[in-house]
Parts: sequence; C-alpha cells; structure tokens
Amino acid sequence: MKRLKVVSIIGVGLIGGSLGMALRKRKAASKVIGIGRNPARLKMAITLGAVDRATTDFRAGVKDAQIVVIATPAGLIPEMVKKVLPYVKEDCIITDVGSTKKVIVKKIQSFLPSGIHFVGAHPLAGAEVGGVKNARPDLFQGAYCILTPVAGTNPKALAVIKKMWQSVGAGVIEISPEQHDTILAFTSHLPHLVAVSLMGLVHRYSKKYKNFSKFIAGGFRDTTRIASSPGEIWRDIFLTNRAEILRALAGFKREIDSIESFIRTEDGDSLRKKLEFAKRQRDLLLKNR
Amino acid sequence: MKRLKVVSIIGVGLIGGSLGMALRKRKAASKVIGIGRNPARLKMAITLGAVDRATTDFRAGVKDAQIVVIATPAGLIPEMVKKVLPYVKEDCIITDVGSTKKVIVKKIQSFLPSGIHFVGAHPLAGAEVGGVKNARPDLFQGAYCILTPVAGTNPKALAVIKKMWQSVGAGVIEISPEQHDTILAFTSHLPHLVAVSLMGLVHRYSKKYKNFSKFIAGGFRDTTRIASSPGEIWRDIFLTNRAEILRALAGFKREIDSIESFIRTEDGDSLRKKLEFAKRQRDLLLKNR
Repeated sequence: MKRLKVVSIIGVGLIGGSLGMALRKRKAASKVIGIGRNPARLKMAITLGAVDRATTDFRAGVKDAQIVVIATPAGLIPEMVKKVLPYVKEDCIITDVGSTKKVIVKKIQSFLPSGIHFVGAHPLAGAEVGGVKNARPDLFQGAYCILTPVAGTNPKALAVIKKMWQSVGAGVIEISPEQHDTILAFTSHLPHLVAVSLMGLVHRYSKKYKNFSKFIAGGFRDTTRIASSPGEIWRDIFLTNRAEILRALAGFKREIDSIESFIRTEDGDSLRKKLEFAKRQRDLLLKNR
Repeated sequence: MKRLKVVSIIGVGLIGGSLGMALRKRKAASKVIGIGRNPARLKMAITLGAVDRATTDFRAGVKDAQIVVIATPAGLIPEMVKKVLPYVKEDCIITDVGSTKKVIVKKIQSFLPSGIHFVGAHPLAGAEVGGVKNARPDLFQGAYCILTPVAGTNPKALAVIKKMWQSVGAGVIEISPEQHDTILAFTSHLPHLVAVSLMGLVHRYSKKYKNFSKFIAGGFRDTTRIASSPGEIWRDIFLTNRAEILRALAGFKREIDSIESFIRTEDGDSLRKKLEFAKRQRDLLLKNR
C-alpha cells in the first residue's frame, strides 16, 4: 500500500499529538495538519513536531485530507464529524480515537453521506497526563488499536485506517462497537470509576490526620493513578457508555460484597482462596497479552 | 548511638530479606541471622546476601540477639513472639513489620514479660512479588516506616528500632496502633480489596471474549497491580484490621453510589466536578509527600 497522503488531526492533545508525531517521524503521511481552537496550543504542537502545520479554520484544515482524525473528548466527536462534512473531499476517511464506540459510531452512521467514510477506532494507549506537551512519538508502539467496523463500513477505508495505526507501531484488532464497549467497561471504565471513588474517599480522611500523605505507598499510588486523568474526557466516557458501565459496576459491587462477607464472618479460608485466585488470574491475564 | 549488635530476622521473605540486605550492606549491625522453616529458602537468603547465617532452630537463632524482627505474615506475629520469649536475652527488643498494628500490639503487650521489649513497626514498602528472591537492599530507601509505641513501650527500645530503620534509609513516623490501622485501611487495605474485586470480576468476562487480554491497557494493569500480592499475607491483614476495613469499605460504597447516580441520571456537570476534584486531590496528595 502506498504512503498515506494528508492526515488532518482535530484536537492535538496527548493522543492526537502523539499520532501526528509518530506519522511524521516515520514519514508515514505526506503531511500532518493540526486543527484546534487554541492558537497557542497549536503553535506548541508545531514546535514539538506533532504537526507540519496548524490552523483554527476547519475548512482550510480538512479540505485536502485523505484522513481526518477526530481526537477530541468522546462527547464532541459526532458534532466534529458534522462540522467537517461540508469541507472534506469525496472518499475522505473520517476516523476517531474515542474511548467508547457504540453511541458515537451509531450517531455518525445515522448522518454520514455516501462518498464519505467513517471508521471507528480506539487506540489503547494514553497516560494520566494530557495535552500535547506530554505527547510522544512512541506512544502507540506495541499498543493495540481497536477498530470497530459496522455493516456499512467501506472495506478500503477500513484497510487505510488499519494501515495508519500499524504504521505507528500499533497492533490492530477488529470487533463490533458493542463488544468494544462491553469489554472496555470492565478493563478501563470501571477501574477508572473505582480509582476516582478511592480518591474521593481518601480526601475526606487526609484532612483529619497529620502526615496523611506520608502513608501513601506504591499500592495506593498505582491503584489511583488513572484518577489524575482529565475530567472532561472521562465524563464523556461515562456518559457515552452508561449502560455497560452500570452493568460492570453492579458486578463489581457483588464482588466487594462477597469479600466483605468473608471479612465480616472472619472466614479466612474463603478470603485466602479469593485472594489467591485473583493473584493467579492477574498473573495469567498479563502473561497472555 | 553505637552500631546495632546481632539482629535476628524471623521470616526471610521480601521484607525480612531486604532488611537483612540493607543492614549488611550498610554495616549497620554486627551480624544478621535469618530464621525460617524452609532450609532451601534460608540457603538462598545466605547466597543472596540477605543474612550472615541462617537456622531453622529458634533458640540458636535468637539467643544472642539485640533485636528480633518478626517478618512473617501478620497473623503469625504474636505466636512467633511467644515462641522466642523463652530464648531471648534480658533487654532484647522484639519488633515486627506487620501491616496492621492494633490487634497485634495489644495481644503482644498482654503477655510480654518485663525485661523484654516490644516495638510495633510497619515499613511502608513492598512489591507485589514476594520472597527473598525479590528482596533488595534499597527497598526502604526513601520510604517511611511507621512505629506504633504504646504507654508501656520502653523509650530506649523505641530509639533503637528507630535507629535501625533510619540506618536502612527510611523516614520514621510515630503514631498509635489505632491511628495506624485507621489510616492504612484507607490508603492500603481498601485499595487492595478493590483491586482483588476488579480482578475477580474481570476474570469472569475474560473467558467470554476472544482476545480479552489484549484489551488490558496501563490503567487496568496499575489499578490491579497489588492484586498480585501473596494471598496469605493479605488474608491476615484483612482479618487483623477487620473493623477499620469494613468502615472504609462502607465509605467507599457511598462514593461509588454517588458516581453511579450521576451516571444513571446523566448528570454530566456533577460527574465532571467529581472527576476533576479527584484529579486535583490526587495531584495535591502526591505532591505533599
């Protein structure tokens, strides 16, 4: 397959910026254009090498694009697609990096005109620190990117987006938007909700005890790491994958209730079994990656 | 203060082994003796430089000790103290590294004879991988060790144990066993319970979906890291800090219920506030360490 042509990235933050850097570094696209609202941040994106050029003007930014990547918070993605539709070329491929897929893909399919393609995507990479200043060209190296084609997805468009992610070092997996959201509710969204809850709780006690922060060891730091992620992005994730997250949360509550009952009844054997099972499963799951 | 004399460590695993290595490397004690049940593991402790010599015989192991460190799982600590009492010298200082303090310290104080001292201690260091093979001489460098003296604690004995931990690079904090257990329930025990619950839940779904393990990104890995810790140790922690952990868990459930209600009612503003609050608090808490 030939090199990608113009790739326009709307939202040059951690993910959009890292994608731009990676494409440029590997010379995988003829040009990378950044589009955003904030001229200072766009300027930084150029300085950091995330894009070749940048603009706040949607028309100028997307009119020559082979691929338009929407890298805004999930809640804005359908709206951004609508916004660029009048300006993109015939056969342009629009894609996204949203952390939830079902609601987003369904909405976009409902208004997507023929001749313009959309491929839902979600690179499983990130950090708790957002913004283009934290972008890195190797962010996707060795990571997986989930593509979520649907019945109407153009196979050639799908192949191009697949190529784009592979060209920046990611492995590509294709599943349905529904399966994506079900699995991610367990592996990503619920852990996030839990980390935020732990922080909210601990905060209340941190005021009460002198030196509280000294009692924070590695376990707490790791368990709550993702709670330092940007609130806007996660609000959108929680709202666009509501049903699945609530379902995962119900299962999680049953799990903590079961451990709670072992502690309450001082059932050391069941507790130990539960703990050793979790250890074994985790070791296995991470080994099989 | 003079150099420590003979330090005997019962249970030469990750913590006991790392303490031995650190004391030996810094020449902080005249001799480090390891005591355990398993001759092969004791041999490994010698090979790895964790102890000067090792024995399965309690009497031989502790009779010359200035300090006896009990580094077994928390549930065994009082029993181990009882076991060494007939053999230790007058003025011997017994200490522990247990992750809970109230139940352990109270039990030991109830049978401790005069002339023998006990100082409760809990170094906030560790890893999800146990055993002497993972021990490191720098494990306590920059960490905090909590000492939990009570009314009857001998001030000289306290000073010696303080010195021991400072000599291996740890900062020392003194609080009551009760406060220790209350705070650790929030910063360590609850996060552990949560990580184990997440793993238990995710396991059920990992069978259902092909490629499930590929959907595990950094967030999940970090949030569940501590679930890979040894089950026996954590069973004892859960059982010896029951009341405080159940109290922390009740608070945690209120937190997740509040986030759940925001998701259920699609209250994006409250959700975003909650998420941003957690981010701010976490950043602040870790900065103040």
